[in-house]
Amino acid sequence: MLLLVLDLAGTFVFALSGATAGVKRRLDLFGVLVLSFAAGNAGGITRDLLIGAVPPAAISDWRYLAVSLLAGIITFYWFSAIDRLRSPVLVFDGAGLALFAVSGTQKALALGLAPVMAALLGMLTGIGGGMTRDVLLSEIPTVLRADLYAVAALAGAAVVVIGAALRLPSTAVTIAGAVVCFGLRFLAIRRGWHLPVAHQPGQSATDDPHTPGDRKDDHV
Amino acid sequence: MLLLVLDLAGTFVFALSGATAGVKRRLDLFGVLVLSFAAGNAGGITRDLLIGAVPPAAISDWRYLAVSLLAGIITFYWFSAIDRLRSPVLVFDGAGLALFAVSGTQKALALGLAPVMAALLGMLTGIGGGMTRDVLLSEIPTVLRADLYAVAALAGAAVVVIGAALRLPSTAVTIAGAVVCFGLRFLAIRRGWHLPVAHQPGQSATDDPHTPGDRKDDHV
Amino acid sequence: MLLLVLDLAGTFVFALSGATAGVKRRLDLFGVLVLSFAAGNAGGITRDLLIGAVPPAAISDWRYLAVSLLAGIITFYWFSAIDRLRSPVLVFDGAGLALFAVSGTQKALALGLAPVMAALLGMLTGIGGGMTRDVLLSEIPTVLRADLYAVAALAGAAVVVIGAALRLPSTAVTIAGAVVCFGLRFLAIRRGWHLPVAHQPGQSATDDPHTPGDRKDDHV
Repeated sequence: MLLLVLDLAGTFVFALSGATAGVKRRLDLFGVLVLSFAAGNAGGITRDLLIGAVPPAAISDWRYLAVSLLAGIITFYWFSAIDRLRSPVLVFDGAGLALFAVSGTQKALALGLAPVMAALLGMLTGIGGGMTRDVLLSEIPTVLRADLYAVAALAGAAVVVIGAALRLPSTAVTIAGAVVCFGLRFLAIRRGWHLPVAHQPGQSATDDPHTPGDRKDDHV
Repeated sequence: MLLLVLDLAGTFVFALSGATAGVKRRLDLFGVLVLSFAAGNAGGITRDLLIGAVPPAAISDWRYLAVSLLAGIITFYWFSAIDRLRSPVLVFDGAGLALFAVSGTQKALALGLAPVMAALLGMLTGIGGGMTRDVLLSEIPTVLRADLYAVAALAGAAVVVIGAALRLPSTAVTIAGAVVCFGLRFLAIRRGWHLPVAHQPGQSATDDPHTPGDRKDDHV
Repeated sequence: MLLLVLDLAGTFVFALSGATAGVKRRLDLFGVLVLSFAAGNAGGITRDLLIGAVPPAAISDWRYLAVSLLAGIITFYWFSAIDRLRSPVLVFDGAGLALFAVSGTQKALALGLAPVMAALLGMLTGIGGGMTRDVLLSEIPTVLRADLYAVAALAGAAVVVIGAALRLPSTAVTIAGAVVCFGLRFLAIRRGWHLPVAHQPGQSATDDPHTPGDRKDDHV
């Protein structure tokens, strides 16, 4: 039950991020709704296909569709209100990441997967929607460059896996995992924490890998 | 039987659209054949994976492959003849959309899916091939911006679902659905009907969302 | 056993190609590791999903993950050493292609698929990883334009299928298939062999389809 609520909440906030990106790229109403659904559900659908849980929950349960369309319509008709929030895509994205990382891990653990694999599938659930959103917009997925994005998801998933191994109460562990993931992601954005970029010969030492031009797909 | 013929005809016309787009982007012969196969079969393969019908018909039945390759070879060697038709990608695309929307819906209904889900899977069958074609060409999928594209597919699928609920003759319902979808799509192109684009603060009121530059991925 | 070793070796070299492309596009450490895993495993995962072998080996067997991460980390920290090899992406790519084409075909034959379908699935195993790598980097997949890329995979797969039909020793057939594929690919790069590009009306006859600008996604 908690799992379903988390999953639907994650779907909603990710769908908001997809719809916001779609409106910014001037897609029409249908395009915005497709991006809402894709951003909200592609991670979970991929996870379900990989573990053989077909048809995926996002297809067989109408609530995922309803929640995604709701987020898309709200964003489409009240875009200026949603846009007034500071860098809304990043914030919704971070919340969706946290919710999906813990719910995806819980689902994989419930199906009896090994801990490491469960954590990775949780991470995939978290990053799959955003990657699909960016691929559909013909951009290099944010997750491949952004500051501690997937690492945050993995940290949240690890909290859930370790908590489950220690037999701590499931609700507390879930909340702790989500808080760790969102907090880490939020701090990374605020403070500009990021993973290293490989040194390439011939580059000047002062060449900043994160110039504004490079970051255009971060939707900051 | 009717289902198979529709499906193969849809595969053929979609494969023509994929091959035409591939030739325009100067892909080599193999690239053109891959785009033919992807545009013709990705929608059906995705539908089959989602409903657990593996291996998908496009993989296990050689006729889908044969029809796709035929369309690709015809387009490759007689491109100037095919290009002389006015905006051929859009026309083939519209015909494929109509055929797949009704055949996909029929297949989903035959497998006992609920009406709303069957209509959505029909729509997905219709738009999946074109989306895959555009993603492979590193473009934002036409369907996310084009005039009443997916809405036309959904309308055709809805005709099939409603007709099935009223127990009308299957052949008549199928033809009606395809005609509704293609007609709606064709009128939308001719008359420039399109879905609304969200208002973004700071844009001038005269800013036309469909400037030629914006439309380059419509392959008009 | 031979199959597993080939598969892991193919995963390793493809993962090197993915990681090299990721470093060149200035992805961070995680992005480079994702590209390693995607380039190394997307072909096999797609094949396994299509033939209904879930969960795919790349998900259930930790060695695929370990080998991919190893390749990514080596490339990330010793990039200048790897880059000193001439056009390393193309070379690793060719080796991965050869190994995957034969191992994918062997696996499909072992599951009892028909020869033609087994050869095509072998080819898909070979080209799927590179296509996913390029789509994630928002580029048109190299395979759709490059010189005899997929044709080489298909030739290697055909050697395996024909050898199996003639009941020749499996190890010899596998090695012969890999050598044919890699050799053909290597010669195509060296000598500039390529498949024809369709003639489009209005193009000047001297218009070279393979200008350097066109080839930027070949990572030469």
